[in-house]
Amino acid sequence: MISSPDNATVPPRVVRSGSELLAIVRDARAGGQKVGLVPTMGALHAGHASLVDRSAAECDLTVATIFVNPAQFGPGEDFGRYPRTLDADLSLLATHGAAVVFAPSREEMYGAEHSTYVDVQRVSERWEGACRPRHFLGVATVVLKLFMLAPADVAYFGQKDYQQSLLIRRMVRDLNVPIRIEVCPTLRDPDGLAMSSRNVYLSPAERTRALSLSASLRRAEQLVAAGERDVSILLAEMHRVIADAGGVQLDYLAISDHQTLEELVRIEDQAVALIAARVGSTRLIDNTLLQLSS
Amino acid sequence: MISSPDNATVPPRVVRSGSELLAIVRDARAGGQKVGLVPTMGALHAGHASLVDRSAAECDLTVATIFVNPAQFGPGEDFGRYPRTLDADLSLLATHGAAVVFAPSREEMYGAEHSTYVDVQRVSERWEGACRPRHFLGVATVVLKLFMLAPADVAYFGQKDYQQSLLIRRMVRDLNVPIRIEVCPTLRDPDGLAMSSRNVYLSPAERTRALSLSASLRRAEQLVAAGERDVSILLAEMHRVIADAGGVQLDYLAISDHQTLEELVRIEDQAVALIAARVGSTRLIDNTLLQLSS
Repeated sequence: MISSPDNATVPPRVVRSGSELLAIVRDARAGGQKVGLVPTMGALHAGHASLVDRSAAECDLTVATIFVNPAQFGPGEDFGRYPRTLDADLSLLATHGAAVVFAPSREEMYGAEHSTYVDVQRVSERWEGACRPRHFLGVATVVLKLFMLAPADVAYFGQKDYQQSLLIRRMVRDLNVPIRIEVCPTLRDPDGLAMSSRNVYLSPAERTRALSLSASLRRAEQLVAAGERDVSILLAEMHRVIADAGGVQLDYLAISDHQTLEELVRIEDQAVALIAARVGSTRLIDNTLLQLSS
Repeated sequence: MISSPDNATVPPRVVRSGSELLAIVRDARAGGQKVGLVPTMGALHAGHASLVDRSAAECDLTVATIFVNPAQFGPGEDFGRYPRTLDADLSLLATHGAAVVFAPSREEMYGAEHSTYVDVQRVSERWEGACRPRHFLGVATVVLKLFMLAPADVAYFGQKDYQQSLLIRRMVRDLNVPIRIEVCPTLRDPDGLAMSSRNVYLSPAERTRALSLSASLRRAEQLVAAGERDVSILLAEMHRVIADAGGVQLDYLAISDHQTLEELVRIEDQAVALIAARVGSTRLIDNTLLQLSS
């Protein structure tokens, strides 16, 4: 009999069927286990790993989901070429302690007659919602479906998708979904670029230009820390950082109330700087909270 | 010590808080009890009682809800004057075996910033959906909220609201809500009028005219039983019954596929006859399944 080394990683149980997933999560909770859920579209990186780590630290059972959700991609977006790296994803999930991975087919998630959507109004309308019509309808719908199939105690999302995390909090509040939402910090490469599954699309030259997104956010943080409150001055500085890099087409650049996402004139309370831009054919988003030092 | 008679009715536990309701239902299910849910808007009649009876017969714990849902009433509809008869409702529920009654305030159900709605497309578009814009958005939203607050094994609805029952089945299927939907037969007064909380609005003369709705449905059933398959003939006969009564303004009268609700030309399979009409200021609906005898 061969004994495993103590820190051997156990391959996660890969589940394809929603009803099987529901039974696993219900059994775990009935047995007194705390269940954490980490919904992803795969192509996992250290940002996702940090969510799994957090769940594994806080919960008895961590369930990750991998599903490239067609409902949240618009026509002409990158649904077809979105990176799909299941084997590498399973290795990463095993290393970080996800015991169950739900990786359903498109047919398992959306029957031919699917016609129900969850519409989180207001918070979905600006910024990403304005650039990507129906994107948040697809996000809210698939996340609610995953919450029904994996009725966990807690679900973990990244702050990188700031507006999405607000939207999910609102949905859970408004529809009384009994699950706690935790939003975890954005992870960055050493050069400052926010980790994203889409970064693999960038050429080396594009990647250099893309650094202006995080650089502009850092610049805003520095100015706010130094006492600047005037949003027009902050935005002008951010625009200058991005213009200097060249080759970055902004979709939007905004400093907004951190809850309503309405644009601000002055920073009086907590704000969020939001940015979306195209670098070559790659669309990137990033954000940072701007906190007044008291 | 005074012992209660065996068949004494125990007053139901009235719950005003969603979190308290969730705890009750979770505890019951964790203890192995099967839980049945009967959502209502109150003003209960024998039709509602039949749903509670069915739940009490099939489940260990029956939870009824009473909430006049503002989100499903349009401007100018009868939200304000909808009958509210809580004391009588509680007596009826006690008699029929509902142990828990959730009767939340409007504020408990819809916070000031509520902005999330469940949109069941297609099946919501025709008939009631066309006459009452946003009605089904309000229905689907409140029913999903109730399913989250009372995660029962089974929920019971009446066939009287035929399109609503289809919509709820679609929502549960599309969003993977883990609850079984049972649709129970319409109850009728001895004169044939479908029971409805809105029947109290009818004057005696209006009530007589309103009988033409159920009479037209009976006429269609008789013709189908006698071999008629041509929808135009069936509709002409139904229109004649209603016109003969006088004083009935039809919103719609249709013979549709029993699943898609699309209008039929011939009855080939199971169909549904749907009717909505105003008698005086009262809007009534009724329906019947038209089954081919094989």
